[in-house]
Amino acid sequence: MAFDWIEEQARARRRAGLVRTLRPRPADAPLLDLASNDYLGLARHPEVVAGAAEAARTWGGGATGSRLVTGTTELHAELERELAGFCGFEAALVFSSGYAANLAAVTALAPHGSLIVSDAGNHASLIDGCRLARGTTQVVGHADPEAVRKALGTHEGPAVLVSDTVFSVDGDAAPLAELAGACREHGAGLVVDDAHGLGVLGDGGRGAVHAAGLAGADDVVVTVTLSKSLGSQGGAVLGPARVIDHLVNAARTFIFDTGLAPAAVGAALAALRLLRREPERAARAREVAGELHARLTAAGLHAVRPDAAVVSVRAPSPEEAVRWAADCRAAGLAVGCFRPPSVPDGISRLRLTARADLSGAQIERAVRVIGETRP
Amino acid sequence: MAFDWIEEQARARRRAGLVRTLRPRPADAPLLDLASNDYLGLARHPEVVAGAAEAARTWGGGATGSRLVTGTTELHAELERELAGFCGFEAALVFSSGYAANLAAVTALAPHGSLIVSDAGNHASLIDGCRLARGTTQVVGHADPEAVRKALGTHEGPAVLVSDTVFSVDGDAAPLAELAGACREHGAGLVVDDAHGLGVLGDGGRGAVHAAGLAGADDVVVTVTLSKSLGSQGGAVLGPARVIDHLVNAARTFIFDTGLAPAAVGAALAALRLLRREPERAARAREVAGELHARLTAAGLHAVRPDAAVVSVRAPSPEEAVRWAADCRAAGLAVGCFRPPSVPDGISRLRLTARADLSGAQIERAVRVIGETRP
Repeated sequence: MAFDWIEEQARARRRAGLVRTLRPRPADAPLLDLASNDYLGLARHPEVVAGAAEAARTWGGGATGSRLVTGTTELHAELERELAGFCGFEAALVFSSGYAANLAAVTALAPHGSLIVSDAGNHASLIDGCRLARGTTQVVGHADPEAVRKALGTHEGPAVLVSDTVFSVDGDAAPLAELAGACREHGAGLVVDDAHGLGVLGDGGRGAVHAAGLAGADDVVVTVTLSKSLGSQGGAVLGPARVIDHLVNAARTFIFDTGLAPAAVGAALAALRLLRREPERAARAREVAGELHARLTAAGLHAVRPDAAVVSVRAPSPEEAVRWAADCRAAGLAVGCFRPPSVPDGISRLRLTARADLSGAQIERAVRVIGETRP
Repeated sequence: MAFDWIEEQARARRRAGLVRTLRPRPADAPLLDLASNDYLGLARHPEVVAGAAEAARTWGGGATGSRLVTGTTELHAELERELAGFCGFEAALVFSSGYAANLAAVTALAPHGSLIVSDAGNHASLIDGCRLARGTTQVVGHADPEAVRKALGTHEGPAVLVSDTVFSVDGDAAPLAELAGACREHGAGLVVDDAHGLGVLGDGGRGAVHAAGLAGADDVVVTVTLSKSLGSQGGAVLGPARVIDHLVNAARTFIFDTGLAPAAVGAALAALRLLRREPERAARAREVAGELHARLTAAGLHAVRPDAAVVSVRAPSPEEAVRWAADCRAAGLAVGCFRPPSVPDGISRLRLTARADLSGAQIERAVRVIGETRP
């Protein structure tokens, strides 16, 4: 019978304690949220919600087609202009998800005969981009500019380095300036995913690339999500205008996908304007992350020092990580739980996200619950 | 300099007249729209818009995380239940786009050692799914059950046939019953993309798979979009519960993507309820397509007889197709223009979409403009 083979995989997952199930949340979840990527606490901000609702009223429930047919509205163009301007790039292109933006950037910028140097800790969407691209991928050690330099030195012709700026599992930052230096020695492009940097790092939340002084460079392309700090949905690629024009013409996940829904565009635009008006939100997210880390460490837990807003806490095993997260939940605290195959190194962890709108009392409560439920 | 190589591709595109540019539309576009995939005219329906706005107000601007962390709301679960029930399947899983749903279904159901038989006319997202999957892909001639039978006969072990139900370029339907027969002879699964069938074909718009009597079968998996007949954004996979559970655990574009924004879920849910209440919308879309085809043919144009709501009209060359579409636009009519590399066979065409809410006078006007501007 077709699909019978999936039963064996299901049994193996059950045996290993790795079964994933969906847990629909109510609108008024009573949990303290340290699991979402809503870093600035904007997803439910009245202005962001109004931005979504107003866009749906003005433009409809959907974009109705590919961006190249009927799916580009003046609202999309407005978001692209403001996002590019905010982050310091010449142009931007909005996608239906960060995943689609990453597939687009990597595949369109790594043609046949080119080399892609890819960090071992990269997000699944960058890895899938490498697998779909016509170029050849060489995976290098995590956050290792010397390894990048060496890999680029073996190749003639177009090359790109592909990396997250902030890695989603451990929350550590890539050494961007050094990576850019290695790329420039070899005339290679730098393609980085700033999903966890935008809104958190850099001047007023302009992101990790802006913070590294690389914004607007001819040889740098950045992808971001609209679904984390901007509290909406979607992704974008930022870069030189000629690169963006190239994506419009060559990126399959742009050409063959329906445009991002107007409501998501409107929500992201409202969040971006809010962030520009209240730049202190970015610093507050970093401050909360630092405070979480300090308190967890003081409580004797193995937390990784955060470079942005993700705080990772090691767990002894996948089973104990799951039990730990469940106990936190029973005590009213939502935390992320990362385990194989979602972690690059096989180490399971709790993943906490600092939100700019967490109060001191909430941080204290979160750390207390995590400490009391530790394996 | 990094990315210099894209200039040469840009020059080649300019020489070939294949440059694509974005044309942002205003909210109150004066054009008669025969270019979008808004088959039922629901994208701007007050109930659909209200569904989007209300969902944003209740749930926020974004889902805030992966469906497996914080991104699954009771609204997502509600849409999944109703969509599965409507189409006659046991379970459904919603994605941020139809592209992501197709990548998920194909990659998760074609493991290492399996065979994927793929129709030569398949959509880019199915093709990319095949390229990402660990199984081996064999491309077979378009809509050819005998070729499918032959390909499946060469293989031992898990196999799937992957096909669109309605092909987006020419609007022709796959011979689903025959394809399912070929699959069953070999114990292979059938994975079909009903993006252009849902809302148009089958009893009350239940789709091409329902029409073929295959809904709810153990060996059939269907992907749909929420961005066409349902006037929203997103995609879904429908199938047996065990297959959906498998996707939750194995599909990278599900696990590593932010959940679909609440506004898009709310819009799709409102559209689905509308369609259930007003099933005649589906028949009307088919009727409009038939009328378009009859009138175009009567005017001496080379239009392909539509199996659903897409009516394709051949153009002599890419340049003339572009000029033709531009002339239509100048005369107040938006039509799609498909040309290489978006067409499988190198033949450029105008692509017209029938909307259920087009009036007789609008159809007449559209045909008149197309006839008067023909190359």
